[in-house]
Amino acid sequence: MRYALAGGGKRIRPVLCLAVGDALGVEPVELLPAAAALELVHSFSLVHDDLPALDDDAVRRGQPSAHVRFGEATAILAGDALLAEAYRLALSYGSPDVARELARSTLAMIGGQYLDVTGGEPDLEALDRLKTGALFGACIGCALAVAGVPSDEQAPWRQFGGEIGLLFQLVDDVLDEDGHVLTLGVNGTRRLAEHALRRADDCLDRVAADTSVLRDIAGGLLERTS
Amino acid sequence: MRYALAGGGKRIRPVLCLAVGDALGVEPVELLPAAAALELVHSFSLVHDDLPALDDDAVRRGQPSAHVRFGEATAILAGDALLAEAYRLALSYGSPDVARELARSTLAMIGGQYLDVTGGEPDLEALDRLKTGALFGACIGCALAVAGVPSDEQAPWRQFGGEIGLLFQLVDDVLDEDGHVLTLGVNGTRRLAEHALRRADDCLDRVAADTSVLRDIAGGLLERTS
Repeated sequence: MRYALAGGGKRIRPVLCLAVGDALGVEPVELLPAAAALELVHSFSLVHDDLPALDDDAVRRGQPSAHVRFGEATAILAGDALLAEAYRLALSYGSPDVARELARSTLAMIGGQYLDVTGGEPDLEALDRLKTGALFGACIGCALAVAGVPSDEQAPWRQFGGEIGLLFQLVDDVLDEDGHVLTLGVNGTRRLAEHALRRADDCLDRVAADTSVLRDIAGGLLERTS
Repeated sequence: MRYALAGGGKRIRPVLCLAVGDALGVEPVELLPAAAALELVHSFSLVHDDLPALDDDAVRRGQPSAHVRFGEATAILAGDALLAEAYRLALSYGSPDVARELARSTLAMIGGQYLDVTGGEPDLEALDRLKTGALFGACIGCALAVAGVPSDEQAPWRQFGGEIGLLFQLVDDVLDEDGHVLTLGVNGTRRLAEHALRRADDCLDRVAADTSVLRDIAGGLLERTS
């Protein structure tokens, strides 16, 4: 479990959760269990997706994948335990809302991976929403839950999460030269990403919070090169 | 997911949860999400334990195991989704307590399986407590949570859960001719199971509830032949 977590990565999900919380006036320490839980769910999905029966990736972030380093049995169990530990952390809050965000998004993510593996869903955008968008949405949702933002004020925030997830996936496609790049080309895909960034900024115009850090993060996601 | 659940089995975990709830005056319908979540966690563990990298069991309850029937990728994802769906159900309650019982016991169970697979724990009783006892404990714990039994009245109930888990495992060993039977023989193991049943009954003497159904279930666990 530690090996899977310590390999680095961008930590974009916890960063996003903490940044939304910060904009809403929540102390980072209050958000840490939720932020960590989000990274654990992401990490669980990578460990299982790398398995030979799924994507069969022997390398993750320049290091041997968990199953290559520790064997398949341990990797399967480590993935399981990363998911369970994520819920344990999410359940350290008095309200079940953070854990509910996690449960909803984990199910969507696994459903997306299932459709991808079995070829049951040809629609790339539906797949992206399930495989990437749902957990990005939960990053925002967890912060809203901890901040206690009422449901009727959550719409622009949640929409922001959707755009950020899309933006992230589009830039991923450009960097990996797959997904949308196969039909739209690099320039077409980058253009879509720029539109998503613009819509994300529009969402932030509609919330009463200091969103400067979030705008920097969103802009950085468009410019990233890894 | 449905295939893994529909294969039958004794459903002893949900039955135990419902019976404790019944003794405490909780309507069965109130306990159904918790009871189903417990069976889903059990089912998740069977699907993953049967995988070639773990116990490599091709048959489960007289039917092809999930990975034999649907392939390894689908079985891994189905196990993941059974676990996530268990949390979603457990989180349908207003309080996070049921889901917390689940998180604690899932982590213990995965830890037990890890120790078993890697040979890191030679102590059979510690293994049994992790692999079987923890989730049996959660069956009781979930019912206590839904019934709102105060922590300082939970001790005999929780002890009952521990004894029932031990009893279940000892009878399993007798039926499978492994575990404790290898050191204590069939008769020695049955004797231990009878002691566990007696202690379980003693626990029920100490709670203010109609425990007749629970006593029948406990007695039935000693007499079961499959």
